[in-house]
Amino acid sequence: MALQPPPAGPDFTRGDGLLPAIAQDAATGEVLMLAFMNAEAYAETLATGRAVYYSRSQGRLWRKGAQSGHVQEVQQIYLDCDADAILLKVVQHGPGACHEGYRSCFFRRVTPAGLEIAAPRTFDPNAVYGEET
Amino acid sequence: MALQPPPAGPDFTRGDGLLPAIAQDAATGEVLMLAFMNAEAYAETLATGRAVYYSRSQGRLWRKGAQSGHVQEVQQIYLDCDADAILLKVVQHGPGACHEGYRSCFFRRVTPAGLEIAAPRTFDPNAVYGEET
Repeated sequence: MALQPPPAGPDFTRGDGLLPAIAQDAATGEVLMLAFMNAEAYAETLATGRAVYYSRSQGRLWRKGAQSGHVQEVQQIYLDCDADAILLKVVQHGPGACHEGYRSCFFRRVTPAGLEIAAPRTFDPNAVYGEET
Repeated sequence: MALQPPPAGPDFTRGDGLLPAIAQDAATGEVLMLAFMNAEAYAETLATGRAVYYSRSQGRLWRKGAQSGHVQEVQQIYLDCDADAILLKVVQHGPGACHEGYRSCFFRRVTPAGLEIAAPRTFDPNAVYGEET
């Protein structure tokens, strides 16, 4: 196996400049969500200590919790071996990360009979959100 | 917020047919790796109960552990709210998921001084791998 130099940071030359970022609850290990970051979102996350993503659908930075107050305080950041995926250990403020009203976006479990809701709703999204989560 | 019908399964019309898939240790919650799945990889994962990804670099299915024996036995699968990200709860067989010889691919932590190795090496990748991990 050829030796490769260790990465200096996320490799935003990959994935058309958008790398997947996992937000994991720093205390419980629960995976809260997956979103994408561009270099600007990553830099702002480092600078502010709050998770900032890049919204592919809206084509702009997505400061998680800007509207809802459900910010993600970043405690640690890890990169994977290829430096093209990012893992954030976060403190999720508020009742949840998901715009559908759940603590984790991964609230649907695959079963032989189809998808089932596998977690309780923790808040009413209609009371919280317009378009910014 | 407009009502949307719940998804029937992963939405492979998104992400050019490749969706990010997180492998998480079912027992400890450790995030082991992130890779991508196409519809065929997802179907084979469901059918076999072992994680199968799609290698973007090699342009073909990637049956995790085919060479190393470090297979991932899938215990549960979750989809996120938009059905465009997949979470696998797995039993990682063997000493680790990472082709660099670590249990998790996320073994590098971001620090103010740069990246640091944050986990012990659990195996010698030279002794295990050619090209299939």
